[in-house]
Amino acid sequence: MNPVIELLQSHRSIRKFKPEPVAEEMIRSIVAAAQCASTSNFVQAYSIIRVKDPAVRKQIAELAGPQPWVEACPLFLVFCADLNRSELACRMNDREMVQGYTEQFIIATVDVALAAQNTMIAAESLGLGGVYIGGIRNNPQKICDLLRIPDHVYPVFGMCLGYPNDDPQRKPRLPLEAVLKTDRYTDGEDAARIGAYDQVCREYYIKRDGSARDDTWTQQISEMMGKAQRPHMKGFVQGKGFDLK
Amino acid sequence: MNPVIELLQSHRSIRKFKPEPVAEEMIRSIVAAAQCASTSNFVQAYSIIRVKDPAVRKQIAELAGPQPWVEACPLFLVFCADLNRSELACRMNDREMVQGYTEQFIIATVDVALAAQNTMIAAESLGLGGVYIGGIRNNPQKICDLLRIPDHVYPVFGMCLGYPNDDPQRKPRLPLEAVLKTDRYTDGEDAARIGAYDQVCREYYIKRDGSARDDTWTQQISEMMGKAQRPHMKGFVQGKGFDLK
Repeated sequence: MNPVIELLQSHRSIRKFKPEPVAEEMIRSIVAAAQCASTSNFVQAYSIIRVKDPAVRKQIAELAGPQPWVEACPLFLVFCADLNRSELACRMNDREMVQGYTEQFIIATVDVALAAQNTMIAAESLGLGGVYIGGIRNNPQKICDLLRIPDHVYPVFGMCLGYPNDDPQRKPRLPLEAVLKTDRYTDGEDAARIGAYDQVCREYYIKRDGSARDDTWTQQISEMMGKAQRPHMKGFVQGKGFDLK
Repeated sequence: MNPVIELLQSHRSIRKFKPEPVAEEMIRSIVAAAQCASTSNFVQAYSIIRVKDPAVRKQIAELAGPQPWVEACPLFLVFCADLNRSELACRMNDREMVQGYTEQFIIATVDVALAAQNTMIAAESLGLGGVYIGGIRNNPQKICDLLRIPDHVYPVFGMCLGYPNDDPQRKPRLPLEAVLKTDRYTDGEDAARIGAYDQVCREYYIKRDGSARDDTWTQQISEMMGKAQRPHMKGFVQGKGFDLK
């Protein structure tokens, strides 16, 4: 254990923030750290849109849930998978970019996620807290209209950041043995492990300050994964030039 | 600037390692930190396969490039986007998992990337170094055969880790202004910014120890993105139950 691992292990999603702003210099330092994440073949296939306009924030907060912390947080970032810049690089060299491969979708989606996780960690190291906002995928076309996001770019998630005004408990994770496997994927013992984990989660939810409930991990996941999952996403990403071919 | 941001900003891909192994306790600590990353709706849609078998390592090293460091590194991990565990959670609650939505593919791909970036940072904080191996997507079906990866799981990338036996320079990143935008996506000035960045990269490549070359960022990206991008990926992920519908 060292201070960095302690920081990583202390992560909680923060949705309530003090009003104090995040200094401009701090934002630049965080984004510079984000850019240092690994990137597939050096392509750096992402852009980050900082949303300041209160009217736009209000609309995104509604579209994403509602999730009022999108409107209230001091710093709100939208992370986009971005091949528009690659397209420019091709044009600058009189080449045509190949388009629509599923592989390109994977490259850009992984690239933006790695940069985002560096963002979260850099922010947390500076005493900030935050939460990812997958809810921007509820209506991603509207997000594109609001932020003028062009073809070959798609908004993957948002992130609220600011000084925490809340101290939620850490959520227990799956047993390490269910996640880390050796030499081959095996899941023979996972039902027993997950059964035990369900009880850990149940205790967490029952004891949780403020929003106690009776729930387990598998109940929650089966509820989520039993329903259609944002069925507009395929048509949406295809409309942005990610044909998934 | 603080020690965590310094650590993030000091990232380089490490491909040469000292022979000394990574302690078991350290591996557990790194994976536990990985698990603390944010996860969409708490789904934790990833698994990590540690590959110890030298014969399997040798085959993956070939398939991925060849990339001999896959065989030589002390610790090699394969990061998988995993909905198999969600399917088990559904079965444990007598529900049927919805399948094949593009959204589920995004959820699992982002989840595994966030956990992987925590892995890299935790490892680096302990004095290790490493490199992502996207090359496992050259022949992902063969990777699945070798590691017995079931349906609803797909290997996204590998990661080599170990004590560095190399000290490469940091690669310059895109100008921050090209990546961070405010309130709307704008790229009007990006051609100029990227033109200047091309010269920065050119100097980096010319001066680089060991493997100097004359190249720019846009040349490299246009070369990469001018060619078909792993066209087998769509069929492969569909075969694993990620129908991209």
